Amino acid sequence: MSAFPFEITAHEGQARTGVLKTPRGDIPTPIFMPVGTAATVKALTLDMVRQSHAKIILGNTYHLMLRPTAERVKRLGGLHKFMGWDGPILTDSGGFQVMSLSQISKVTEEAVTFQSHIDGSRHILSPERSMEIQADLLGSDIVMQLDECVSWPAEEARAQKALQLSARWGQRSKAAFGQRDTQALFGIQQGSTFENLRRESTDRLLDIGFDGYAIGGLAVGEGHEAMCDTLDYCAPLLPWERPRYLMGVGKPIDLVEGVARGVDMFDCVLPTRSGRHGQVWTWEGPLNIKNARFAEDDTPLDATSDCPASRDYSKAYLHHLFKAEEILGQILLSWHNIAFFQALMIRMRAAIAAGEFAAFRKWFHETHVKRGA
Amino acid sequence: MSAFPFEITAHEGQARTGVLKTPRGDIPTPIFMPVGTAATVKALTLDMVRQSHAKIILGNTYHLMLRPTAERVKRLGGLHKFMGWDGPILTDSGGFQVMSLSQISKVTEEAVTFQSHIDGSRHILSPERSMEIQADLLGSDIVMQLDECVSWPAEEARAQKALQLSARWGQRSKAAFGQRDTQALFGIQQGSTFENLRRESTDRLLDIGFDGYAIGGLAVGEGHEAMCDTLDYCAPLLPWERPRYLMGVGKPIDLVEGVARGVDMFDCVLPTRSGRHGQVWTWEGPLNIKNARFAEDDTPLDATSDCPASRDYSKAYLHHLFKAEEILGQILLSWHNIAFFQALMIRMRAAIAAGEFAAFRKWFHETHVKRGA
Ligand SMILES: [Zn+2]
Ligand SMILES: [Zn+2]
Repeated sequence: MSAFPFEITAHEGQARTGVLKTPRGDIPTPIFMPVGTAATVKALTLDMVRQSHAKIILGNTYHLMLRPTAERVKRLGGLHKFMGWDGPILTDSGGFQVMSLSQISKVTEEAVTFQSHIDGSRHILSPERSMEIQADLLGSDIVMQLDECVSWPAEEARAQKALQLSARWGQRSKAAFGQRDTQALFGIQQGSTFENLRRESTDRLLDIGFDGYAIGGLAVGEGHEAMCDTLDYCAPLLPWERPRYLMGVGKPIDLVEGVARGVDMFDCVLPTRSGRHGQVWTWEGPLNIKNARFAEDDTPLDATSDCPASRDYSKAYLHHLFKAEEILGQILLSWHNIAFFQALMIRMRAAIAAGEFAAFRKWFHETHVKRGA
Repeated sequence: MSAFPFEITAHEGQARTGVLKTPRGDIPTPIFMPVGTAATVKALTLDMVRQSHAKIILGNTYHLMLRPTAERVKRLGGLHKFMGWDGPILTDSGGFQVMSLSQISKVTEEAVTFQSHIDGSRHILSPERSMEIQADLLGSDIVMQLDECVSWPAEEARAQKALQLSARWGQRSKAAFGQRDTQALFGIQQGSTFENLRRESTDRLLDIGFDGYAIGGLAVGEGHEAMCDTLDYCAPLLPWERPRYLMGVGKPIDLVEGVARGVDMFDCVLPTRSGRHGQVWTWEGPLNIKNARFAEDDTPLDATSDCPASRDYSKAYLHHLFKAEEILGQILLSWHNIAFFQALMIRMRAAIAAGEFAAFRKWFHETHVKRGA
C-alpha cells in the first residue's frame, strides 16, 4: 500500500493519463519535471516555474550534498523551505552524477567513493546514505533508490553485473527508507538495451516492492530509435497501476514517444540548458534565436501561449538580447522552453483523456518533427 | 513653455518633492531611474522593474546605436515597443560612453568620431545625429543634449573649453530637436569642480532654454565630498521650477545628499551591477552576500519590503546561489537592489512632504552610513 495514491483516469493503447496524489499536491500525469539542480531551476524564479504549470521539480542529491551540503539544508528547514518551493520535489539518488561528474569514483558492493568536482574532497555514497540525504535531510517527496547506470554501449555481462548491484542496492535502499506515510520511494529498472536483462531487473524490483518505478540507463547516448525500441518492451514490464518515470528524458519527441509507450514522468535539463544557449522549442520544431533571420521578426515565440516569455516579447528583441549577451535573454528562453514542455504535457494529457492521442502524435510528427527536432 | 509640466508640491530647504508629468505617466520626484543599457535593465524582467516601483528607466544611445542600431529599433516600432516598457524612457546623448567606452574617439567642433568597442566599425555622433537617434529613431521621452564631459581632475582651461563646446552643442541640439509636444529636451551643465565655470555653463544653458537641466561631469572620480561641495553651489544655480538631473549618480548616500541639495532625478548602474556581483544595499548599509556569516542566516534581506526578492528568500539561500554561481542569485540581488533604491526615494519623497527630511537624513547617516556605505 503506497503512500501516494495513483489513479489512471484514461488510457489509449499504452498511453495513460491520471493523477499521482502527494501530500504537497496532486501531480497530473504524464508530467515533465523541470530540473532544479542546485536548489534552483536555472535562471528562473519560482513564480516563473509555477506560471509555466510545472507541478513537481527535481533536485540533485549529488550537487546538494556537496554544496550547500545536505546537513546545512536540513538545518535551514529542508529543501522545500530552503528554496521556497512548496510543491512536490523528486530527488535523484546522486549515483548517476557521482559516476558522470566526479573526478574519481570507485564502486564497491558497499558504496561509491568519489571526489567532489568542486573542491576535490572525498565522499561516500551508499544506499543508506542516499536515503538519509534524500528522505531525512533534504526532505524529498519522491526518493530514488541508489543504482548503478552503465554507459552505452554496454557488454551484456557488464550490464548484468550493474543490474544485480542495483537490485541489491534497491533492497538496501528500501530497508533504509522503511515505511513512510508522506514520502515515496521509487525503484530503478536497469539492463541497458537487453530485453532479458530488463525483465530480470523488473523481477528483482517487484520482489522488493516500490511506490513507483523508474526506467534507468536510457538517454545515455543510444539515440532516439534505440530508446524507443527499448521502451517498447521495458515500459510495459512495469506494473500498470504504479507511476513509471523515464529518467533524464528528453527532447519533445522523446516525451511524445515515451508517453505513447506508457511512461508517466520525465525530467531533463534540456529546456533550461538549451534556453540559456539560445535554442527555442516550439510546436513547429526547434529554432536558434541567434539566427539572423530573427533580427527584425516582430512576432512573439507563441502568441497563443499563456507564458509571458512566449507571448509578450518579439523574436527580434530576444535575438538582440542574445547578441548582446544579456541575462534577460537566458531568463526568457528558459522560461519559454519550460512553459512549452508543460504545454506539450498538457496537450498530451487532454489528448489521451479525449481518445485523441494517436491523432495528436501524428500531428506532432508532422508539424514538429519534420523540421528536424 | 515646456511639454512636461513639473509641479513642486513641497520642499524643505533645498530638498523638494513633486511630479514631472509626461504623456507616458507621472514621475514622482525625487526619482531614481534604473539603467536599461541595451534595452534591458540587466538581469530583470520588466515585471520585476515595475514591481520595484520604478517609474522611468534610462536607455543608452551609445549601446543601442551600435546594437541593434537605432534604425532597427525604429523599424521595430521604437524603443518602448521593442523592449516592452510603456512608461517614460530617458536616453543619454551617447557622448559620455563614446568617450569612455569606444576604442578611439576624436572630438571636433562638428562631432565625435569613434570606433565601436564591439566590432571596430567607425561612427559619427553629432548633436544633430544624437537628436535623430534619441528623439526620432528610439522615440525617447526625455532626450539629452550632446555634451563633452571632461575627466577628473581637469585643468580649468580644459574644463572651460569643454563647457563652451557643450554649450554650442546644446544650441545645435535644441535647434535639431525643435519644438515637440510629447518629448522633452534637457541641457547639461558642465564646468568640473569650478564654481565660475558652473555659473558660466548655466548662463549659456538658460540662454538656450531647456525643459530640464542635468548636472554633468560629476561622479567621475572626484569622490563623495567633492561632489557634495560642488553640488552645494551648482544645483541651486539651475532654475527652481524645472527638474534637475544628476547624471550617473550614485550610491544611496549620494542620492540622499543630492536630494538635500535640490536634485530631482538620478540614474546609476550601481544597483544592478553590484547585485550581479553579490553586493546588497540595505537600510543598515551594504553587505556582501558571499560572506561566510550568511551561510546559515535564515532571515530575508528585508522582511518589511514589498519586493519578493527582499522578502521571500533567506540570506542563506542567496549566499548559496552566489557560491554556486547560479543566475537566480544575480536576478534576485539586482531586483532587491533596484527595489531598495526605489524604497529610498519613496521614503525621501514622504519625508520632504512631511517636513521630516532633515530627521530622515540624520537617521540615514546613523543607520546606513556608519556601517561604511
Ligand atoms: Zn536530459
Ligand atoms: Zn553610476
